[in-house]
Amino acid sequence: MSAKTNSGRFFEDFRLGETIRHATPRTVTSGDVALYNGLFGPRFAVQSSDHFARGIGYPRSPLDDLLVFHVVFGKTVPDVSLNAVANLGYADCRFLKPVYPGATLSAVSEVIGLKENSNGKTGIVYVRSRGFDEGCAPVLEYVRWVMVRKRDEAAPAPAETVPDLPKAVATSALGLACPRLDAAAYDTVLTGSPHRFGDYTAGERIDHVDGMTVEEAEHQIATRLYQNTARVHFNLFAQAKDRFGKRLIYGGHVISLARALSFNGLGNAFHIAAINGGRHVAPLFAGLTVFAWSEVLETAAVPGRDDVGALRLRTIATKDRPCGDFPRKLGAGAAESGTRGNADEYDPAVILDLDYWVLMPR
Amino acid sequence: MSAKTNSGRFFEDFRLGETIRHATPRTVTSGDVALYNGLFGPRFAVQSSDHFARGIGYPRSPLDDLLVFHVVFGKTVPDVSLNAVANLGYADCRFLKPVYPGATLSAVSEVIGLKENSNGKTGIVYVRSRGFDEGCAPVLEYVRWVMVRKRDEAAPAPAETVPDLPKAVATSALGLACPRLDAAAYDTVLTGSPHRFGDYTAGERIDHVDGMTVEEAEHQIATRLYQNTARVHFNLFAQAKDRFGKRLIYGGHVISLARALSFNGLGNAFHIAAINGGRHVAPLFAGLTVFAWSEVLETAAVPGRDDVGALRLRTIATKDRPCGDFPRKLGAGAAESGTRGNADEYDPAVILDLDYWVLMPR
Amino acid sequence: MSAKTNSGRFFEDFRLGETIRHATPRTVTSGDVALYNGLFGPRFAVQSSDHFARGIGYPRSPLDDLLVFHVVFGKTVPDVSLNAVANLGYADCRFLKPVYPGATLSAVSEVIGLKENSNGKTGIVYVRSRGFDEGCAPVLEYVRWVMVRKRDEAAPAPAETVPDLPKAVATSALGLACPRLDAAAYDTVLTGSPHRFGDYTAGERIDHVDGMTVEEAEHQIATRLYQNTARVHFNLFAQAKDRFGKRLIYGGHVISLARALSFNGLGNAFHIAAINGGRHVAPLFAGLTVFAWSEVLETAAVPGRDDVGALRLRTIATKDRPCGDFPRKLGAGAAESGTRGNADEYDPAVILDLDYWVLMPR
Repeated sequence: MSAKTNSGRFFEDFRLGETIRHATPRTVTSGDVALYNGLFGPRFAVQSSDHFARGIGYPRSPLDDLLVFHVVFGKTVPDVSLNAVANLGYADCRFLKPVYPGATLSAVSEVIGLKENSNGKTGIVYVRSRGFDEGCAPVLEYVRWVMVRKRDEAAPAPAETVPDLPKAVATSALGLACPRLDAAAYDTVLTGSPHRFGDYTAGERIDHVDGMTVEEAEHQIATRLYQNTARVHFNLFAQAKDRFGKRLIYGGHVISLARALSFNGLGNAFHIAAINGGRHVAPLFAGLTVFAWSEVLETAAVPGRDDVGALRLRTIATKDRPCGDFPRKLGAGAAESGTRGNADEYDPAVILDLDYWVLMPR
Repeated sequence: MSAKTNSGRFFEDFRLGETIRHATPRTVTSGDVALYNGLFGPRFAVQSSDHFARGIGYPRSPLDDLLVFHVVFGKTVPDVSLNAVANLGYADCRFLKPVYPGATLSAVSEVIGLKENSNGKTGIVYVRSRGFDEGCAPVLEYVRWVMVRKRDEAAPAPAETVPDLPKAVATSALGLACPRLDAAAYDTVLTGSPHRFGDYTAGERIDHVDGMTVEEAEHQIATRLYQNTARVHFNLFAQAKDRFGKRLIYGGHVISLARALSFNGLGNAFHIAAINGGRHVAPLFAGLTVFAWSEVLETAAVPGRDDVGALRLRTIATKDRPCGDFPRKLGAGAAESGTRGNADEYDPAVILDLDYWVLMPR
Repeated sequence: MSAKTNSGRFFEDFRLGETIRHATPRTVTSGDVALYNGLFGPRFAVQSSDHFARGIGYPRSPLDDLLVFHVVFGKTVPDVSLNAVANLGYADCRFLKPVYPGATLSAVSEVIGLKENSNGKTGIVYVRSRGFDEGCAPVLEYVRWVMVRKRDEAAPAPAETVPDLPKAVATSALGLACPRLDAAAYDTVLTGSPHRFGDYTAGERIDHVDGMTVEEAEHQIATRLYQNTARVHFNLFAQAKDRFGKRLIYGGHVISLARALSFNGLGNAFHIAAINGGRHVAPLFAGLTVFAWSEVLETAAVPGRDDVGALRLRTIATKDRPCGDFPRKLGAGAAESGTRGNADEYDPAVILDLDYWVLMPR
């Protein structure tokens, strides 16, 4: 391999406290928005209509929150997860500022935890990644942890440091990426759902009904759009020799599909304010159909805001399995929310278990 | 099913005279135009080049007429045709104002006819749908009728009302979405065809020669771009159990393909002014190749306009069958134009039979 | 076939010295850029970030050079190569002016050479094609030669004229499409590679490591985006009867894939200044994975420029074959650069052999 190509960092290349400035700043445009719409079909009026967005207090339609997330995430891949065995989890993800077409996004990560695995072959790297706009204002911040291969198994293990991460983002941190809204001007006929914040209650479960089949071209186009370079998504020649024998679909693709499907039942959950945690329980492959359902874990006021309230949601996505019976974990006690068990404990159709905060107009 | 998800209207939910404001206003952008171009490959210079459009009298390139149609149509689906068994026809479709990138489109439908079928299980709903821009100016109006399932077969039948629909849009209604053009500045070298309005005659038939194969990813991306939520297009898991065993391609996809193919022979038919009627004779599936041919049904002056003339066209699209011999209906008398028979009467390769008005420079 | 459809020019239709103005001017937008990014995943910071581009001296991000090439090339297809048997080669391709979103591109070709083949059935046509913006400023110029069928084998052969073409574009012609840069402001952390012009040496070989699998929907969307009408790319019904039995992927698709892959190892080669020659050694089909490697043929100063230097590169792309051992030609002497032999002389996995100049900051 040429000294000029990027072979990615291995576990022993990460240093605690190290700051990594990621490559390839990216101007996001209405072209990216169109492609995102074509790939996922979101229908939240705030992101769909400049006119609607202006009517309630935005200067124009903001980008879909997940498009911002994927672009920032994509920048971190060449430095953080090119040699990752698995993307283990997310925490403390907060959207900090609305992003509009024309903004240029860049990303920086800090290594906040390291823990070598007992097999001596891999280790877990915790990074806090931040996305910035062209004025250096932070737009997004999140922690993720990945299992990364060691280049040299004989390399000494670093001191073990595991960061203390919040189980959920505090309600005081919600709403930073949402301007004060004129909730009276928010027309629920145009948004397609009459149900506002006050209509939802903790414990409520919603089957999002619809299913969406994924094609290879779709997830490849999406993932390249984010300049995400993880090889498993694009290289059938190599993947054919792998244990699955096919390309793996970027986990973020599933999140975006589940979010778009969730419109049916959560049509006024117009903004993802934070992601508390998420887990890609099993891989998705092209040709399979994604379904989703959500549970309202909690309803909360956003401190200082009487225009919007926050719903804490748990959304489960499945493959080739409708969600009318709310599949999640196997066994009786397994259904308790907040438990993070093994993939084995899940219904075998489950591919995503996501815990996040959305805002809804009051 | 949660009370918060949209299960769509059933036949007995429609009331004659009822007005339905549809959800999800949509700002259309140059990003949508790019994706439309990538999916269909249209080559009409007016829509392709801002510079060309300005040269003849537009402020810039308008959106492809069918992109406007599909976006407006898409908005009506969740309210009108989510429980449709079949999309039976279109009539009186008129383009009323050019639409440019940056416009925000919304849609309203009025129920203008109801007729329960004799089996008591379904009924036909006639709606007049209108698309508006952000200034509430109408940009498009059309009637369509769909066969919709009853939720409860015991529900009483409504009074039968079948609207009287024009067989063709009057020439006085054409041209509203086309500014007065400087036809002398219309450069037929740049448009790729030397043939102007006066070069076409009624009865002329044109085989558009080229064929275009459709992929699953393509029709899914297109249909999601329009925020069309009809389940049959996206959900392989459910469709696999259906009689066709596969996803159905949105009928509008075939119209757009036939329109793009028609450039070869109709290169100066730069604007669809109206659709008189249309029929999706048979479904299209991914992997098949679409061909098309057209007959000039009529040539007409547009009242008050000496810059453009109108051609009334009948375009037939087929699957996996070139159109050099102009396939249409089976049998001798069946070829008469204007006859609307059963699908059985058509050549089995025919999938679309569309009757519409285009404008051409004089 | 109707007299109104374009059946394309046959060999005997071309006249030496003839100028052909091509149809369908095309305004390129940020929507086209987004789609190009989604299809190929390029990561050069200059084209990705308006903010980065402005920082070094561009007014904003220019279009990817190859997107400009493909759009101009696409315009020439209906007139030049609709009846081509093979696209034989390129030469003297120079990028003359940066192109930004909003520009309208058009194309003109001049017939500069004709040579009937000894079989009397086909002939070789040499054209010099130029792309212009809406102000008639040239943005691109190149020569290509194609083998075209005769309509009538009895048609007399034209006088044989074979143009004298440069083996490589002179360094004095490089850099016209690149403004003077502030190379000190060029941040190699953001570009993802620390290696500047001075770090590369002639003879150096770089395996670009990554592989990219191509789907039918992807190459169809790309090729339609360029309004390229070559039938072999789109019509499975016809191609199924052809010798390959499937759709052929536009050769330019391979060039764009190889360019995007080359980022890994050539991250600061931000601009293609010229293409000296290129050969599509073998066809590519959907489902195969493209790999690439490059050799630095030459390093050169650009006359009058101390901000950038030029690398002459030879990039080889393969299908379903990683390039760690730099596959190119078979046999010992065959590896000599500059030799243009038969496809038989190449490693059977090779599909592209491209010789071009890139600019890099000093």
